[in-house]
Amino acid sequence: MTTASAPGKVILFGEHAVVSGVPALGSAIDLRATVSVVDLPGRVEIDASNLRLMVTGFTVDPLAECIHTVGSSRDALLATRYISAVLKELRAGDLRVTVESRIPPAAGLGSSAAIVVATLAALNEHLGLKMSRIEIGSEAYRIEKLVQQGLGSPMDTALSTFGGYQLVSDKIQARKLPELRLVVGYTERAHDTRTEVAKVQSLRQSYPEVVAPIFQAIGAISKRALELLEEGRLEELGALMNVNHGLLEALGVGTRELSELVYAARGAGGAMGAKLTGAGGGGCMIALPKEGGEAEIATAIRQARGRTFAVKTGCEGVRLEG
Amino acid sequence: MTTASAPGKVILFGEHAVVSGVPALGSAIDLRATVSVVDLPGRVEIDASNLRLMVTGFTVDPLAECIHTVGSSRDALLATRYISAVLKELRAGDLRVTVESRIPPAAGLGSSAAIVVATLAALNEHLGLKMSRIEIGSEAYRIEKLVQQGLGSPMDTALSTFGGYQLVSDKIQARKLPELRLVVGYTERAHDTRTEVAKVQSLRQSYPEVVAPIFQAIGAISKRALELLEEGRLEELGALMNVNHGLLEALGVGTRELSELVYAARGAGGAMGAKLTGAGGGGCMIALPKEGGEAEIATAIRQARGRTFAVKTGCEGVRLEG
Repeated sequence: MTTASAPGKVILFGEHAVVSGVPALGSAIDLRATVSVVDLPGRVEIDASNLRLMVTGFTVDPLAECIHTVGSSRDALLATRYISAVLKELRAGDLRVTVESRIPPAAGLGSSAAIVVATLAALNEHLGLKMSRIEIGSEAYRIEKLVQQGLGSPMDTALSTFGGYQLVSDKIQARKLPELRLVVGYTERAHDTRTEVAKVQSLRQSYPEVVAPIFQAIGAISKRALELLEEGRLEELGALMNVNHGLLEALGVGTRELSELVYAARGAGGAMGAKLTGAGGGGCMIALPKEGGEAEIATAIRQARGRTFAVKTGCEGVRLEG
Repeated sequence: MTTASAPGKVILFGEHAVVSGVPALGSAIDLRATVSVVDLPGRVEIDASNLRLMVTGFTVDPLAECIHTVGSSRDALLATRYISAVLKELRAGDLRVTVESRIPPAAGLGSSAAIVVATLAALNEHLGLKMSRIEIGSEAYRIEKLVQQGLGSPMDTALSTFGGYQLVSDKIQARKLPELRLVVGYTERAHDTRTEVAKVQSLRQSYPEVVAPIFQAIGAISKRALELLEEGRLEELGALMNVNHGLLEALGVGTRELSELVYAARGAGGAMGAKLTGAGGGGCMIALPKEGGEAEIATAIRQARGRTFAVKTGCEGVRLEG
């Protein structure tokens, strides 16, 4: 058996505006997807039974483009779709692939990228393909885009592969930055990145003179945030998270639930800053706690009916396990 | 007895950003303050007993700078302060001034400007001072600034005096625009304009490269909104209210309560758009209903624990009554 794991991610600053070429800063987090591969002569099986919504018995024939499922769930189907795409691309068969993940799917935390990257890394080792880490990263991006019909974030696969922090603009650059502790609040509403991207795109087409300076402001925040993070000036970093959140609200990707969690974290939770993370329209927000303030924020988020967990940033990328 | 009334106002677009010279659009609304003057030989009395929080028996000696109050309330004290300043400036005595107002005070709806303008107009008529409307407007602005120790919005006094719509940038221009029906949601939290202005000022000093494009985006919204309003394109006007609200959140003048009312109006209430109005940090939001949708929005706002009332825009300025 060969096992690999890869991390999920949060976008700290710059989501949506990045399409206009301004920088966005993302980080790998310590929630991981783990994929194991064992030989299974004569067939291919994908076992997603340990994903959040329990399912069993996915049987996939990757070459026939046909997935047999028993006891499906939306999350498991999603994972299966990504894994079978990897199997297809690598023309791999005679295998059982088992996936587990602590990353909530469709929440903007890079769950699918982590699954694709971990699957690629496990197969790479198991089959002796000798792909480099860079090749795993670019292959993962290609496969994500394939499954998502052209949509894909190079940031997600880069963070899952290389870990740490990545700054994305017209290119992707790894950045060495200190670790942060964040509290994530999850609305438990799945979001659809495509819908949110289209919403912002449409606003930009209707009101270019309004959206261009909003993107510019978001880009200025990303740049300033890099300096503040390097210098450990967390209070100011938090203030800029608040500003960035408002700008995302202005772009129309906020929701009532996200706003409630953000205000809960800032208010009773005493967060130094809070913002939605990722595409918006559901999914997650992140809050920057004061020293030792994680529990207080988590309580405030739970009282506002959010699911919550603490994460660290700057975590390790894909790796082989045990 | 001489009676005059003057309207309150809402800012539709551009609050805060107006300090950088970009345009802000405000409108007089059909909530009015009414001031009556009768002769009262030998003394001066200000009766604010019909203000929201009932009080009686204000006795004022404007020349001695001493206000005698019996049964005070914050709102009545506030009104009394403005009225006594007008009496002082005009060196008027031997009078009873009675004030009533349907405009909630300290809510960003121009209550104090309406009281000052109505008092000036009533005294102007009663004492035969022959001030022109323009003189009333500029005298009102001067007195507002005096009472508020330098702080004052020329928009508030201009709207109370002239009514209609006023576009403020480096100058004030009346604009002929169609009437809108709006639903106002009041958080019942008084706000302090000075605090909110200082907050934005401080953000601008710390992050000029972030705040300048936010102001620019708000200015672009004001300009576009003028065209949309002229052409009756209300759905697009609503969309821009939503964007403007996000930008005000970005400037840090949003609150949890305002956000709840805004989302309530947009969600269950089906508003075409909603935003906070005025300085923020409390006070009011406004929502643009679909044809006949006022009641639905009002219900949604009440369910979100807001006080609510319907208003019309573009209403008449100061006038003598009865």
